Amino acid sequence: MIEEELGLVEQALQQAVASDVSLLANAGRLVIGSGGKRLRPKMLLLAYRAAGGREAGRAIPLAAAVELIHTASLIHDDINDHSAVRRGEVTVNARWGDGLALLAGDFVFTRLLKLIAAFDTRVLQVLADACIALVEGETLQMLSLGDTRMTEDRYLRIVSQKTGALFAACAALGGILAAGSEQQVSALRDYGSNLGMAFQIRDDTLDLMSTRDELGKPVAQDLQQGTMSLVILHAVQHSERAAALVSAQDVEGTRRLLQETGSIAYAMRVATTYGGRARMALSALPPSEARAALEELADFALARSQ
Amino acid sequence: MIEEELGLVEQALQQAVASDVSLLANAGRLVIGSGGKRLRPKMLLLAYRAAGGREAGRAIPLAAAVELIHTASLIHDDINDHSAVRRGEVTVNARWGDGLALLAGDFVFTRLLKLIAAFDTRVLQVLADACIALVEGETLQMLSLGDTRMTEDRYLRIVSQKTGALFAACAALGGILAAGSEQQVSALRDYGSNLGMAFQIRDDTLDLMSTRDELGKPVAQDLQQGTMSLVILHAVQHSERAAALVSAQDVEGTRRLLQETGSIAYAMRVATTYGGRARMALSALPPSEARAALEELADFALARSQ
Repeated sequence: MIEEELGLVEQALQQAVASDVSLLANAGRLVIGSGGKRLRPKMLLLAYRAAGGREAGRAIPLAAAVELIHTASLIHDDINDHSAVRRGEVTVNARWGDGLALLAGDFVFTRLLKLIAAFDTRVLQVLADACIALVEGETLQMLSLGDTRMTEDRYLRIVSQKTGALFAACAALGGILAAGSEQQVSALRDYGSNLGMAFQIRDDTLDLMSTRDELGKPVAQDLQQGTMSLVILHAVQHSERAAALVSAQDVEGTRRLLQETGSIAYAMRVATTYGGRARMALSALPPSEARAALEELADFALARSQ
Repeated sequence: MIEEELGLVEQALQQAVASDVSLLANAGRLVIGSGGKRLRPKMLLLAYRAAGGREAGRAIPLAAAVELIHTASLIHDDINDHSAVRRGEVTVNARWGDGLALLAGDFVFTRLLKLIAAFDTRVLQVLADACIALVEGETLQMLSLGDTRMTEDRYLRIVSQKTGALFAACAALGGILAAGSEQQVSALRDYGSNLGMAFQIRDDTLDLMSTRDELGKPVAQDLQQGTMSLVILHAVQHSERAAALVSAQDVEGTRRLLQETGSIAYAMRVATTYGGRARMALSALPPSEARAALEELADFALARSQ
């Protein structure tokens, strides 16, 4: 139901990364062009409709802006993770080096300022808070690398900042832009926050279980970098061998152990719980085609294999 | 005449980098606390007064925001330049590593979104354009590293994007916020742009001539990194030995040659010309204490030894 709007978002994204500096334009096009699920713009546009918004054109620049935030953070993430492949494409850092990738990420972030300049203070505050939470979450994650004694609570807090906050902002912004009631905006924020948790927990789990072709990037990348996930933390709590396998970055040994400890199933259950809460939050909104599509988005996030 | 406002800007800067994530707060405090000349906030506050603004309190968050843009770019610059010292203090990258410094720079940049959320579209557009130009200028500079055949025009274009654009935005924003006439805003923009050129050309020149103690950072850092400056480009045009000395990063040999070719004097003349244009632009504003202080700022920028 939002195909036309999504097409306009793609156009806005292409325009947003235009630059006289061809390297920046090429880097922007590489990352924008490599696709991605556009979950954040979709959520924003559907939330706008679900809260009664009728002129989706107004939401397009904001839908592009939230995707740019995500894009900028991916470019910088890939530098810090030394990633060479993302979505089946070479990363900006692998192609042009870390220094230029740093600037390319900054460029994408500064371009989004142009897109949001026409929105009001409340919209900007919501976006600012989401960006700050994202960077804080990334920082906490980096500070926790290799820490197999991290608590599940701390992991969940990091996920809620790193991923949940921007998801929550996307859904809330749709409601705010549609001039939805405070109750509706709050319900949409809950929806986005819980969906972000479900999405990230499942994403972290897939990293451990998939093959390279399914994932579009190397498998067990998190494990090799020492990034903790719910699966790993559960395994460490339930097997004395886990911490040693993880520290040794023994991918095959860890995978076998995860079957024994039931850690994959556990993480998927937690993800499903968050997904259920996301669906539940939507009950505060009147039934509509857009609400049904948001429910489907939650199901899709939980069913995705890549 | 703006001591009180500058004190409030310092408070706003301190508050802006607060975070529950202590590393980010510490990194922010380190860079904010190491001082700097606060040229950008000063320019904005004086331009506000010079254009007839009477409630400087309104300009404080914006004056803090432009300093945060500068701060974020310094943190990222120091990563790319592998700098270990800035303003006599250890850099964020030297203290916490490149990965966390990248996030600290992102953090400072996202915090400024909060500060600017309450301003109108025109203000945000001016800030956005300045940020984009800054990143584009940094990128062009990086792409020109080691290029001794770079033209003077290209060098000046890079400087105008990397430094001139934010200086121009600061002065223009003061005028916009004071509801100055379009002629006044345009004159202030010219002032800032020319002052930025003068400042950066002189800064690049000092890098080659100063001792470490005067500069608060290692001398000839640009030369060692292959960053081209007006001095070097002039020397290359006037001596066949220059390119070889520069490529060999022969600091002492290059310094001696620069005396022979008169390149230092040439760069200082160019800087002085821009400084004169900055002063001249101010004639479109009515005489006032603030206008006189802006003139002094131009003189200070040209006289500074560090």
